[in-house]
Amino acid sequence: MTISHAPSADGVWHHCHLLPEPGQDTALRDGAIVVADGRIVWLGTHAALPDTYRHLPRHDAGGAWITPGLVDCHTHLVYGGQRADEFAMRLAGASYEEIARAGGGIVSTVRATREADEDTLFAQAAGRLRPLLAEGVTAIEIKSGYGLSLDAERKQLRVARRLGTAFGVTVHTTFLGAHALPPEYAGRADDYIDLVCDTMLPALAGEGLVDAVDAFCEGIGFSPAQTRRVFEAAARHGLPVKLHAEQLSNLGGAALAASHQALSADHLEHLDEAGVRAMAAAGTVAVLLPGAYYFLRDTHLPPLALLREHGVRIALATDHNPGTSPTTSLLLMMNMACTLFRMTVPEVLAGVTTHAAHALGAADRHGTLAAGRVADFVLWQVATPAELAYWFGRNPCAAVVRQGRIYPTETGAGAKA
Amino acid sequence: MTISHAPSADGVWHHCHLLPEPGQDTALRDGAIVVADGRIVWLGTHAALPDTYRHLPRHDAGGAWITPGLVDCHTHLVYGGQRADEFAMRLAGASYEEIARAGGGIVSTVRATREADEDTLFAQAAGRLRPLLAEGVTAIEIKSGYGLSLDAERKQLRVARRLGTAFGVTVHTTFLGAHALPPEYAGRADDYIDLVCDTMLPALAGEGLVDAVDAFCEGIGFSPAQTRRVFEAAARHGLPVKLHAEQLSNLGGAALAASHQALSADHLEHLDEAGVRAMAAAGTVAVLLPGAYYFLRDTHLPPLALLREHGVRIALATDHNPGTSPTTSLLLMMNMACTLFRMTVPEVLAGVTTHAAHALGAADRHGTLAAGRVADFVLWQVATPAELAYWFGRNPCAAVVRQGRIYPTETGAGAKA
Ligand SMILES: [Zn+2]
Ligand SMILES: [Zn+2]
Repeated sequence: MTISHAPSADGVWHHCHLLPEPGQDTALRDGAIVVADGRIVWLGTHAALPDTYRHLPRHDAGGAWITPGLVDCHTHLVYGGQRADEFAMRLAGASYEEIARAGGGIVSTVRATREADEDTLFAQAAGRLRPLLAEGVTAIEIKSGYGLSLDAERKQLRVARRLGTAFGVTVHTTFLGAHALPPEYAGRADDYIDLVCDTMLPALAGEGLVDAVDAFCEGIGFSPAQTRRVFEAAARHGLPVKLHAEQLSNLGGAALAASHQALSADHLEHLDEAGVRAMAAAGTVAVLLPGAYYFLRDTHLPPLALLREHGVRIALATDHNPGTSPTTSLLLMMNMACTLFRMTVPEVLAGVTTHAAHALGAADRHGTLAAGRVADFVLWQVATPAELAYWFGRNPCAAVVRQGRIYPTETGAGAKA
Repeated sequence: MTISHAPSADGVWHHCHLLPEPGQDTALRDGAIVVADGRIVWLGTHAALPDTYRHLPRHDAGGAWITPGLVDCHTHLVYGGQRADEFAMRLAGASYEEIARAGGGIVSTVRATREADEDTLFAQAAGRLRPLLAEGVTAIEIKSGYGLSLDAERKQLRVARRLGTAFGVTVHTTFLGAHALPPEYAGRADDYIDLVCDTMLPALAGEGLVDAVDAFCEGIGFSPAQTRRVFEAAARHGLPVKLHAEQLSNLGGAALAASHQALSADHLEHLDEAGVRAMAAAGTVAVLLPGAYYFLRDTHLPPLALLREHGVRIALATDHNPGTSPTTSLLLMMNMACTLFRMTVPEVLAGVTTHAAHALGAADRHGTLAAGRVADFVLWQVATPAELAYWFGRNPCAAVVRQGRIYPTETGAGAKA
């Protein structure tokens, strides 16, 4: 359903239970939500509904549980092609060298992204966005980082913005020029960081295409010193930062990010206690990415106990990308975080809503149901909210209200025979 | 969409590529399928389409890859309730004893199944069947085993049959009375096996509710001697058998099953070479269940190398059940078999089609596209069939043809904004 055909959510939503702050003990049974002009103007128990709203049009939620819209706070959704044949080759025993010779690896995605025109990139990314929307995602972060040239990074970010407009979904763009070294800069990483900091970021920020800046700080990515330069450039443009940190080794990236008041540090399998303390002090959110952990058959768990002990907010995201996390299900990430990381159900509910909103610097607008906010919420056909984490490969979403419009979903429990 | 509203698939399907025997090197690019009276009457390259079919109505497949309908050959789809709160309790640190005191565990599912009326069971199972159908499942096995009394097992099997009729999907029923010991038989397992063999099976088989017979052969289930009695009872009714074997330990169940010409032995994490040899000799299919392996955080891999070496057919299934595999995605099982078991893409493609059909004793009707068969096939909006295993939590199914009728799917790539 396109925006122009989606009906307005204005009126009183009743016959529902509310989870205004998922993960907190604030459930409201027999609740109601009042929407006017696309915004939530009141919520509470149905019994407490003020008289002034009683004669508004009614929406019967069919006994659903209602949560805030889900927030996918770390994705690489816009890129050319896919890498399914590379996946098949690797399982058939091909070496990395053979795969590289066959044109695989990240360079194949960079090439496909550079070659694709904007409409092609848009259509491919839209195909990946739809299943996320069908699961109740109402805000999504989308990174660049497969263009690795000014024009190609611009193309990715423009497509990200267009997705937001076309689908009526909140998109936060992140400039990830420092994702990988493009082939033409082989052996000249510092020169490439010059390009990122002095040419690409100023241009793209000037065009309003950048909401945050990210980098890949890793032995196979960029060094802490190079990362720091990217962060300093972001600061010159008044942009918040985040970081791919401690995924494969511990370079102290999370602490570096925290020292720049990063919104989030992401992956974190190899994070140590010093990094956790630095994140806690800075309020930097830990974004865990169980899809990549699963797909890469990682066995080094992120330090959940330390993150809990120091009170770091923990968010979850799909990390959708063609090389290490080709998933389009945030619900599956909830189950994987429970199953693989032993996170609790309240933790994963908060992880895809309130804490994910914090990771975008958007906790005042997303992740919680509250009067005054844009109407972004999800109706779930479940008996208990724990079902959102329990099933895997099942979508019990009955309908989504996104930016004040109603999108019924045809998947999962609500699907027709 | 209900059966009565689903349009006929009769006519020529063109603008497609065919994978008539998934996993085999028999792909047909630019293919066509001719359907008449709900059956496939011809398939081949479009260029070779006989003149006699050229003027039939046309169905444009939009460039899709077409495979046979998927076969989910091991499920426990019909039961009362769900166990999401138990899942949450366990993650929060509750012991098995605390969960049992709170009414959890398999006995809670037995109680809920016994208490539910047939319509309630049907509605709940339908909610779990729909996402499987939306992924292209056209044949599914459904076991009893949560009733554990004649009346309650009958109720499960009747619901399974009703699902087949209501959704126009092929259902194979399996009587799994020997799934667990019901509470009222505590300490009297042999007496319960008497009931299963001498009362339940004769009655249910007599009512035409049983297509195959299964048991749970395990330290926490039934012994090989008890399993043998169940198999002998099945033989008296001329019914084929299958077995839950070698999941948690090696009791020689697979070899026992093979000695009764079992259609399949399922789970098999602890299968040894003697068991593999026995299965190979008997043509017993190995049904692997990566969902349970994942959900239980098992680390003991099934013996893939031995199964390959001895030429045992390997199938995959969801094992959908509320305790150890609450998944409704056979596509996700394909990805998990690749990711966790390192199965190859051709192996998992065969595993959910031809080999799964063998596990049901239905290889002459399902799992392969061929002239003369009922029209059960799936249109996938993918560039390469490897995408079916590569994405996880994404459904690229564009439409399903099931029993000669067309069911467009609203999920995944084909979904509306
Ligand atoms: Zn990432
Ligand atoms: Zn089973």
